[in-house]
Amino acid sequence: MSHIDERLAALGITLPTPVAPVANYVPFTRSDRIVQISGQLSNDADGGIKGTVGEDVDLDTARHAARLCGINLLAQMRAAADGDLARVRVLRLGGFVQAGRDFSDIPQVINGCSDLMVDVLGERGVHARSAVGVYRIPLGFAVEVDAIIEID
Amino acid sequence: MSHIDERLAALGITLPTPVAPVANYVPFTRSDRIVQISGQLSNDADGGIKGTVGEDVDLDTARHAARLCGINLLAQMRAAADGDLARVRVLRLGGFVQAGRDFSDIPQVINGCSDLMVDVLGERGVHARSAVGVYRIPLGFAVEVDAIIEID
Amino acid sequence: MSHIDERLAALGITLPTPVAPVANYVPFTRSDRIVQISGQLSNDADGGIKGTVGEDVDLDTARHAARLCGINLLAQMRAAADGDLARVRVLRLGGFVQAGRDFSDIPQVINGCSDLMVDVLGERGVHARSAVGVYRIPLGFAVEVDAIIEID
Repeated sequence: MSHIDERLAALGITLPTPVAPVANYVPFTRSDRIVQISGQLSNDADGGIKGTVGEDVDLDTARHAARLCGINLLAQMRAAADGDLARVRVLRLGGFVQAGRDFSDIPQVINGCSDLMVDVLGERGVHARSAVGVYRIPLGFAVEVDAIIEID
Repeated sequence: MSHIDERLAALGITLPTPVAPVANYVPFTRSDRIVQISGQLSNDADGGIKGTVGEDVDLDTARHAARLCGINLLAQMRAAADGDLARVRVLRLGGFVQAGRDFSDIPQVINGCSDLMVDVLGERGVHARSAVGVYRIPLGFAVEVDAIIEID
Repeated sequence: MSHIDERLAALGITLPTPVAPVANYVPFTRSDRIVQISGQLSNDADGGIKGTVGEDVDLDTARHAARLCGINLLAQMRAAADGDLARVRVLRLGGFVQAGRDFSDIPQVINGCSDLMVDVLGERGVHARSAVGVYRIPLGFAVEVDAIIEID
């Protein structure tokens, strides 16, 4: 069991089979060592977390939604790295929160994904980031996060 | 006539002269083989498609708007590749839809651009993607899409 | 005094100590010559510019807000280039404006950042760009801009 698999187990995370895109594109593309990963929704086998943060979704739930995006990103990263997350370094996350007009704690929400990257990948999970509150996330999910990673 | 020119002709598409940016920037920059293409609006010689999807723009019209963004992207890609689209591979699209609050079929809209990439470029048009619904697109256009491509 | 330091002085700009991220991530990551810079807010030592453009923030103030983002980006770029902005080339800016529903002069706002890049870095500041109006910027700031740069 690798160091990273141990961390995932300690966190109680089983990575899902990577989610198929909801439209005509692929989960990731690679050019040399750089991989672009498609936006991952706050979805899971139980239907995930939908709704508008600050209205019908509170901060704690939203942070968990961002963590779901992170779990889906890790699943894609593992696939992109031929099963070995130890080869992955996260360069950038792009976070989108379906936010109500008066909700501006966007960074705290996306931390649910950022913290997971560092918890699982350690120093190689530390990334640059942008985060904004948008009007609508596809299918009404609460959070979407995309990523750019480097593979050894 | 190249294979790609034949596909464009079969689709009834004449690529426009690449649209000049509406502000102080350039349509694309290149670093080694990677090209960053500026966001392209759902504009054409007839004024393009403006409005809010789910309010005064319906899904079919919005999908066509995304296709207009794709046509403008292809024009920029061709310019970036010195006129030869066969040298282009699409790595990532970033789609932004000017969406009403109750409209969440964002993926279906951006498919208008994604489908075009694959129709014209074949396997080399298959890309990673993020898509969100934003509050305002520049100048009130319905859709904006940017891209990262690789050039052989 | 370098050429770029002279330009900064002529513009009356003193670059701040790079702003620490408001959450669990870093200001930039580097892979070979490419640096991803985290989204910078329209913040400064006086509290920066917050509010919704087209509602309680007018176009001139918003353009100045985008310039503040640009100053913060330049500070990060200088740090990423070991203190020497002459080694920096800007590939792409991603601009996000906290916009009211009827405000669509998004490009004019982000020009406040784009113009600064060219004023300070000259030809090496010319970039590709996307710009959209979003619903909420973190902490209620008026503008956020991220960047991808190349370092010699």
